[in-house]
Amino acid sequence: MRKEIEQLAEEVITRCRKLATFSEDSGSLRRTFLSPPMHEVHREITTWLEPLGTELQIDAAGNLRARYAGREPAAPRLLIGSHLDTVPNAGAFDGMLGVVLPIALLEGLDGRRLPYVIEVVGFSDEEGVRFGTPFLGSCALVGRFGESLLAMQDSHGIPVRKAIQDFGLNPAKIADAVLGDDVCAYLEFHIEQGPVLESLGLPLGVVESVAGQSRLEFTFVGRANHAGTTPMNLRIDAIAGAAEWIETVERVAKAIPGLVATVGSLQAKPGAVNVIAGEAQLTLDVRHSADDMRARTVEDLIRGAQAIARGRGLSVCWKERLNQCAVSMDRNLITQVEEAIRKTGSKPHRMASGAGHDAMILAEKVPAGIVFLRTPGGISHDPAESVLVDDVAKAIECGLHLLDQFAVSPAFQKRTCRA
Amino acid sequence: MRKEIEQLAEEVITRCRKLATFSEDSGSLRRTFLSPPMHEVHREITTWLEPLGTELQIDAAGNLRARYAGREPAAPRLLIGSHLDTVPNAGAFDGMLGVVLPIALLEGLDGRRLPYVIEVVGFSDEEGVRFGTPFLGSCALVGRFGESLLAMQDSHGIPVRKAIQDFGLNPAKIADAVLGDDVCAYLEFHIEQGPVLESLGLPLGVVESVAGQSRLEFTFVGRANHAGTTPMNLRIDAIAGAAEWIETVERVAKAIPGLVATVGSLQAKPGAVNVIAGEAQLTLDVRHSADDMRARTVEDLIRGAQAIARGRGLSVCWKERLNQCAVSMDRNLITQVEEAIRKTGSKPHRMASGAGHDAMILAEKVPAGIVFLRTPGGISHDPAESVLVDDVAKAIECGLHLLDQFAVSPAFQKRTCRA
Repeated sequence: MRKEIEQLAEEVITRCRKLATFSEDSGSLRRTFLSPPMHEVHREITTWLEPLGTELQIDAAGNLRARYAGREPAAPRLLIGSHLDTVPNAGAFDGMLGVVLPIALLEGLDGRRLPYVIEVVGFSDEEGVRFGTPFLGSCALVGRFGESLLAMQDSHGIPVRKAIQDFGLNPAKIADAVLGDDVCAYLEFHIEQGPVLESLGLPLGVVESVAGQSRLEFTFVGRANHAGTTPMNLRIDAIAGAAEWIETVERVAKAIPGLVATVGSLQAKPGAVNVIAGEAQLTLDVRHSADDMRARTVEDLIRGAQAIARGRGLSVCWKERLNQCAVSMDRNLITQVEEAIRKTGSKPHRMASGAGHDAMILAEKVPAGIVFLRTPGGISHDPAESVLVDDVAKAIECGLHLLDQFAVSPAFQKRTCRA
Repeated sequence: MRKEIEQLAEEVITRCRKLATFSEDSGSLRRTFLSPPMHEVHREITTWLEPLGTELQIDAAGNLRARYAGREPAAPRLLIGSHLDTVPNAGAFDGMLGVVLPIALLEGLDGRRLPYVIEVVGFSDEEGVRFGTPFLGSCALVGRFGESLLAMQDSHGIPVRKAIQDFGLNPAKIADAVLGDDVCAYLEFHIEQGPVLESLGLPLGVVESVAGQSRLEFTFVGRANHAGTTPMNLRIDAIAGAAEWIETVERVAKAIPGLVATVGSLQAKPGAVNVIAGEAQLTLDVRHSADDMRARTVEDLIRGAQAIARGRGLSVCWKERLNQCAVSMDRNLITQVEEAIRKTGSKPHRMASGAGHDAMILAEKVPAGIVFLRTPGGISHDPAESVLVDDVAKAIECGLHLLDQFAVSPAFQKRTCRA
């Protein structure tokens, strides 16, 4: 078996790299929601799925959905998938790996049928690049693809509804994409997109929760003035205040286990070499798996900004742009994944996901779980994004163990979709 | 006399505000080198100068030059002036005050002739807005208006030579603008453009030197990464490193009397709320009247940046964009100005000018001096730029005392232009 799995793993990587060639851009990968190369991706994946005896369709939200029947016609349904869209200048594994890998699992079954249906899902949108709102694909499965979403426009003024029609689909059939109550779980394989597993020397991790997220914009206002004629003691320098606060953000975040806080953008006005900045605008991104800890930290950082502003004669204001709660993954699935990872000879590592994933949306309706694969260098959203073939082999092995575990777990099969 | 001077002061302010109405922009003041409204300014000033019996010309560099003859035909010549061009969205006093005020001095003489010639100069360019190089007007007087300067182009591709012709002047006559060896000194009245005199409660200051200036660009390079998936201890955050260094710049500068150091611009790449910055570009502006102190400070700050980068796993590089030495004002003129300020009943304050002025260029050839006027709120390069009428009156009084002092100083009149 071991040799076979390595071959499957190599094929998974080859297939991901093949999918990465279907792009809107020449010379780099960009594949947004319902863009023309998505047709090519669907065609390519179909050639892999058809020999496996799956029943294939593209739902009205553009999600590829391939049904591998169970032993009985009325069997419960396990969804395994991820997304097929990408950011601009993307790598080959973010999302795609989670669609290609379950195909390898079906191949690993070698025609064997289980007491449940497996549906491989390739979501049409997770990154949100085209319409500025992520998770369009998974929203359709949980019944959140309504009129307001259909009316949203891309940068060319094309509404979602029109994009669906242009792709050859029928927006009136969106409701058909919603999960039925036969669905018992959603499982996602995804690259970690971070450096944690690599730093621990582990191939696989299991996600306990998707971290909650706060995004804010801060503006420090001082007094723009001549850099040559204003002595140091008579300045009200917005950049200097912002810099002091950035150090506070870093210090506070480092002191709280599991918390990340980032100032990713800073703009100074007027922003000239010979003018003291009168204004500095910054963004703040705070994430933690415990919502109360995240809220408390944001409060602390706001108070810190106010104290720094007071001490310097600056004023400071802020706006909340996002306040998204943490989403827990299913406890039973976490335990099952841990057991399967252990069977591969690796130590399972429980971790929070700092990034959002389709499983976060699916968790509204069904028990959901995520298996993370080590990401070399933590590099993602970049052409240099990669996976190790041995790690993919471990993930396939873990997946096959999971399928077997589910097959003998009546508790697992009895779980149903929350209506 | 006191009442008369107040009237003159009020008229100086009225005239500056009148000149501020001649603009390239509607609704705000912008008047660049040889722009059409400069003709209107010349015409307006001519109406004030002609009744005073001055001999007026516009030299080939567009400088307005009005000669008020001395008692003898072969008398030495004192230049008093400043610039008539402005930055965009300018105030009414930067430059203009220094051209309008000596006209008031001539009026204050009430026809009296002195043992020297007074030439009022209105420079055509000091700000450098149109051609990206400042001091075009004063460069013509010191013989630095050569072929390379004539060939420079503005943003519309118009060379300086063509701009001169379009204004109705003859670029072949640039050499005629150069100072003869009859010139014994250059005196400039200018608003301080900073908050120092205001903070000391003084109307007038005397400039000892124009500070030297270093401008550099720094780039910190770290590793761009996902703000959600990268734990704090595994980040190489370019913004955080830059912020730490900005605090160093502020701390170092505050500890050195008379030194100013400014980070006026900071740009992060990629500059997204959810991405740790992989790169941060900053500008540094350092000024001090002692060149060795300035050089030492720049070295210190470079070493500081290197140390911070080392401690954080960042790399840092920098480029020097400007390294301009300090220029001393003439010692005899400084003493004379101090004496004249004392005669007005005010305490003279010696200070460095953090900004460059025409006197800095003239000092290459002739003894030069600058009298600073208090600038309310330190506000300059802004429509809110202002002067107090009492301060202008003090400046006129100071100027009239100076003219009298020079008249009885054979040493002053014997000084000549350095060829």
